[in-house]
Amino acid sequence: MSDLPKSIEIHEEGPREGFQIEPGPISTADKIRLIEALAETGLHHIQACSFVNPRIVPGWADAEAVVAGFKPKQDVEYTALFFNANGLDRALAFRDKLAINGSISLTASEAFTQKNLHRSHAENLDAMRRHSALHIAKGIPVTRLGVMAAFGCNYQGDITPAQVISTLEDGLRIAAETGAKIDLFSLADTMGWANPMRIERTLGEVRARWPDMAISLHLHDTRGLAVANAHAGLRMGVTRYDSTVGGLGGCPFAGQKGAAGNICTEELVLLCEEMGIATGVDLDRLIEVGRMAEEIVGHVLPSELIHAGSLDAFRRKAA
Amino acid sequence: MSDLPKSIEIHEEGPREGFQIEPGPISTADKIRLIEALAETGLHHIQACSFVNPRIVPGWADAEAVVAGFKPKQDVEYTALFFNANGLDRALAFRDKLAINGSISLTASEAFTQKNLHRSHAENLDAMRRHSALHIAKGIPVTRLGVMAAFGCNYQGDITPAQVISTLEDGLRIAAETGAKIDLFSLADTMGWANPMRIERTLGEVRARWPDMAISLHLHDTRGLAVANAHAGLRMGVTRYDSTVGGLGGCPFAGQKGAAGNICTEELVLLCEEMGIATGVDLDRLIEVGRMAEEIVGHVLPSELIHAGSLDAFRRKAA
Repeated sequence: MSDLPKSIEIHEEGPREGFQIEPGPISTADKIRLIEALAETGLHHIQACSFVNPRIVPGWADAEAVVAGFKPKQDVEYTALFFNANGLDRALAFRDKLAINGSISLTASEAFTQKNLHRSHAENLDAMRRHSALHIAKGIPVTRLGVMAAFGCNYQGDITPAQVISTLEDGLRIAAETGAKIDLFSLADTMGWANPMRIERTLGEVRARWPDMAISLHLHDTRGLAVANAHAGLRMGVTRYDSTVGGLGGCPFAGQKGAAGNICTEELVLLCEEMGIATGVDLDRLIEVGRMAEEIVGHVLPSELIHAGSLDAFRRKAA
Repeated sequence: MSDLPKSIEIHEEGPREGFQIEPGPISTADKIRLIEALAETGLHHIQACSFVNPRIVPGWADAEAVVAGFKPKQDVEYTALFFNANGLDRALAFRDKLAINGSISLTASEAFTQKNLHRSHAENLDAMRRHSALHIAKGIPVTRLGVMAAFGCNYQGDITPAQVISTLEDGLRIAAETGAKIDLFSLADTMGWANPMRIERTLGEVRARWPDMAISLHLHDTRGLAVANAHAGLRMGVTRYDSTVGGLGGCPFAGQKGAAGNICTEELVLLCEEMGIATGVDLDRLIEVGRMAEEIVGHVLPSELIHAGSLDAFRRKAA
């Protein structure tokens, strides 16, 4: 068990993922309330909003008002999601509050790229080349290379480690051409195809090819295996995970109504803390925020833990 | 990864666990329909009902009618749960249909024994001694030694491997005194306190003490970690798991309203089959039965997989 990391870094994406998919309407004040409450739990990275087309994602039509409205907490890094020049400009208007970094985001599945972005893989490479160059031209570092559908795809089926490596090579080529310095690979199980063995194999092959690159996992719980997959990641020494409080969110483009979203932050925290891996998060506070998220969205969220309560709460009662 | 087993044996407890806790009323015909559908999925062990006091568990007041009514399938073993002489006699009336075996069932937590059974551990040992002797006197083998709350307890807190071993020693003493031949230890995470490391440590210590004893895991998903705990069990070579279709059930005595029940059978099957561990179960059929279970109980069940669909279904579409 000595290969488990001593600590991990959690990137909380609940506000961004959740409010993008919830039918709502959810008030700007509630969005701000959730972001501010998350910052009080010990989380250090919060993706606060999405600067996207409000006609396509009406839940984030008030992104500017949310970012303008929340009171930032020291030592917390707030980020935003954006996909194009317009989104980048909207984010840059909040440079004082948001940490703005560029990503090269590719997909290991050609079929998914077509369905989700209406582009071929080659067209997507061109778009990402322009996207990366645009960031660099504006003085924004591009440091992250993301691969969606890295473990399988509802439209294409299984994705092999070789396909992931080839996609990462495509991304690194774009980085080299545009002057981006990638220091993180983010592998996303966008549609819930991973299992612990596949995590081990894909990470193993990626590590063998790029031994010094940091890796982050974005694990969807579409088929209930996210927490087992996170455990496999921990065993492989992965120290960075995306997650969402309460399991907010879902997969808007997986072709499945009602599919679960990201791994729940509080279940990831419980998994780690119970095995002696520090997260910096106060789990009881986070559970309270999960319950607040349920109240805000107005329905039950996937997290079992916000309903059951933490072990520490029972330990205190039993003592 | 060579320590993963080649196959596992699943004990489906959905009917017994589910109908015991669902507010219902659920018709006898629906209970029979679920049991018969489960037998068509490739499952070989189905716990069909509970012979308990109908005033305490009204959902199983029709246990006799259910057992009399279902059409048994060859190669499927049907079992029932019972706790006392009356329950045993009720089960024995169906010796032609039910596989009847006795259990010595103890709890690693004194506080839980008190809360759940209103007995001290010593009183519970006496009761189990009488229970085992009664079975032996009636010619019923007693082969299973179960330990509830083997990883922690909402009333007592953490449970150490040493407490589990001491409880198993108590049970083996009863077995020796009453002439029972124990061939299986069943360790239950009754209130969702386990984590993968604790599974490894407790199983490791139990194995070190009794290297040749078969072990079965009964994992509740109270805090969302059941599938990671099952994976830890698989890595330790455990080949027998209890589970419930759709995640039917819940924990009626954990002091938590709305607490999740057993690990979902279909998520356990997915976890295993995707890693090359045979379960004998047709996952697509099982998912259909999970959806039938949802329809019968009239509300959404915890299983993510019955909502998302199997990977094989998407593989076939993608091919």
